[in-house]
Amino acid sequence: MTYPQRMARARARMQELDIDALCLSVGPDLPYLTGYEAMPLERLTMLVVPQDGDAVLVVPQLEAPRVLEQSGVFSMHPWAETEDPIQIVAGYVGGAPVVAIGDHTWARFVLALQAMLGSARFVPASRVTGPLRAIKDDAEIAALTRAAQAVDLIAADLRDRPFVGRTELDLHREIVDRMLDAGHERANFAIVASGPHAASPHHEPGHRPIEPGDVVLCDFGGTMAGYCSDITRMYAAGEPDPEIRAAYDALVEAQEAAVRAAVVGARCCDVDAVARDALGAAKLADRFVHRTGHGIGMEAHEDPYLVAGDATRLAAGHAFSIEPGVYVPGRFGLRLEDIVAATPHGPRRLNNAPRDLAIVH
Amino acid sequence: MTYPQRMARARARMQELDIDALCLSVGPDLPYLTGYEAMPLERLTMLVVPQDGDAVLVVPQLEAPRVLEQSGVFSMHPWAETEDPIQIVAGYVGGAPVVAIGDHTWARFVLALQAMLGSARFVPASRVTGPLRAIKDDAEIAALTRAAQAVDLIAADLRDRPFVGRTELDLHREIVDRMLDAGHERANFAIVASGPHAASPHHEPGHRPIEPGDVVLCDFGGTMAGYCSDITRMYAAGEPDPEIRAAYDALVEAQEAAVRAAVVGARCCDVDAVARDALGAAKLADRFVHRTGHGIGMEAHEDPYLVAGDATRLAAGHAFSIEPGVYVPGRFGLRLEDIVAATPHGPRRLNNAPRDLAIVH
Repeated sequence: MTYPQRMARARARMQELDIDALCLSVGPDLPYLTGYEAMPLERLTMLVVPQDGDAVLVVPQLEAPRVLEQSGVFSMHPWAETEDPIQIVAGYVGGAPVVAIGDHTWARFVLALQAMLGSARFVPASRVTGPLRAIKDDAEIAALTRAAQAVDLIAADLRDRPFVGRTELDLHREIVDRMLDAGHERANFAIVASGPHAASPHHEPGHRPIEPGDVVLCDFGGTMAGYCSDITRMYAAGEPDPEIRAAYDALVEAQEAAVRAAVVGARCCDVDAVARDALGAAKLADRFVHRTGHGIGMEAHEDPYLVAGDATRLAAGHAFSIEPGVYVPGRFGLRLEDIVAATPHGPRRLNNAPRDLAIVH
Repeated sequence: MTYPQRMARARARMQELDIDALCLSVGPDLPYLTGYEAMPLERLTMLVVPQDGDAVLVVPQLEAPRVLEQSGVFSMHPWAETEDPIQIVAGYVGGAPVVAIGDHTWARFVLALQAMLGSARFVPASRVTGPLRAIKDDAEIAALTRAAQAVDLIAADLRDRPFVGRTELDLHREIVDRMLDAGHERANFAIVASGPHAASPHHEPGHRPIEPGDVVLCDFGGTMAGYCSDITRMYAAGEPDPEIRAAYDALVEAQEAAVRAAVVGARCCDVDAVARDALGAAKLADRFVHRTGHGIGMEAHEDPYLVAGDATRLAAGHAFSIEPGVYVPGRFGLRLEDIVAATPHGPRRLNNAPRDLAIVH
């Protein structure tokens, strides 16, 4: 879909929801609609899209040369160092009664705009953009697939790399380097959690050297051509403890069952329940302390979320992670994660690196 | 200063400003007061500090194992995947009439809290934390100095590295790698802008190969032990055009004059004017399209800003960049940047890599 097509759909939704102006700053909504990403700076960049008027990008003069003006999508209003960008934005918003503001916009700018636009009601921009961004078109699924294939190769290569004696941070650096070498423009995260550290699902890689017998969780992803990758694989430094082996087998089954359940029309909460029930059958339900998955696209985590209580139905074009886990504090942690796209022909895994517990040295 | 000391100073300022509750999420205020940095995620992490009550960190259960609870600074309230963290935060804020909220907090959380705390007035947390964070103590200046020394070595080493034939992105990768090798936990940016590209002050490194005769701008920085580095140096692939050489000489003088002017008691706008006037003497004032500098600390850009119209007076402990530039669209761009600390004994440069125009091959 072209930028003008996306912008037209956003305007149609604004009309439907009675939103008079859309104001976008940092975060993925702006590049989704225009191809331009705002810098997370104290100097405000903000696109103002009136429901019926022309869109204007208010941008620091300093950044203006970086902007590729999308002909027909927006014009530019560069502001100089001593001007007040809030006043300029407020001028374009005018008397709009309902303003949708980008979900990641910094609080200081939200408060300043609210102060200047006294009577306006503010709502999060995701009401407009969320449902549009959640359904990926073919080009977006292709971009997610290429990003997934890039990290698949890294996850597979890691099976032949040395683990024992290296620190978590050392492996972390290798994974980050490989993501950049593989064409990611950004490495977003690279969790390397060894032995008992993996019981903390978002462990920060540290100086612990990997020891024989450790089971190591590697969960990494980045942004490639604007779309995110995210994969988790497990590596065992030698044959693991039988309890860990049994838990891993249960995890593989739970993940497989949840992937099979992620068909068009299924409710997000039901997919979550499938993973949870499968681990429950192995008496591991209470060790699975997080949701089953999150949507993925230009953002690493976005709609839809596969979580208890969320009755959203999966639709063709939804892309999301399926990543059950088993965490035993003080001992070990396991997780297995693939990105999956819901299609009319059933769920399609975008990640296909080997899923067995790799034995490494 | 210890975390309890910083927290006590924040509470004193809250009292002085009649702020009843401080709510901190992503961004540097939270690690400044507690040592813990919130993940920029859809799962809310927020510290609530009532003016007179105990501080509580509302944190996703998933992240809780990562938190080093700062004894005496805060307690923890982990929330499970199906709970509503906004409701929990609102409970701790209670009926506080004035709430200061972290400047970088995501808009979606600000709006949700406002909706739940109907009558509260929200102000940016920097009113409380800004003046505290702007004055660095000795340990903070030492941390900034170590970060500056790390990038000084990289800037100096680049003088002996090949430039011609390499792309901007290739050099960018090398600089990022070197920052991480030198002990930075994060590379925040690494601008490599060659030839005419440098006329865009925040150029995004691309696939342009560096050619003989190009003058290349390298502006890079990261975060090391929580504090930021930021340096700009210029590299010429062979003796440059005499006009560029003359502009560079004027730039060195302007930067030197502005550094000398950055004494305790000087107004920020006056330091800016010194750089601008010096370039004006060389008929380059209209080529200097941005402010002279920005404060630096846990954040790459923070108070104070050396900009026209800002009458803030420099104080001992202020740390900031001095970085005048000369930009000629379509032809070339030049910038020279050091981090400087204001001390009772005069301005002290934390960066000391050679400042002459390096001739590279």
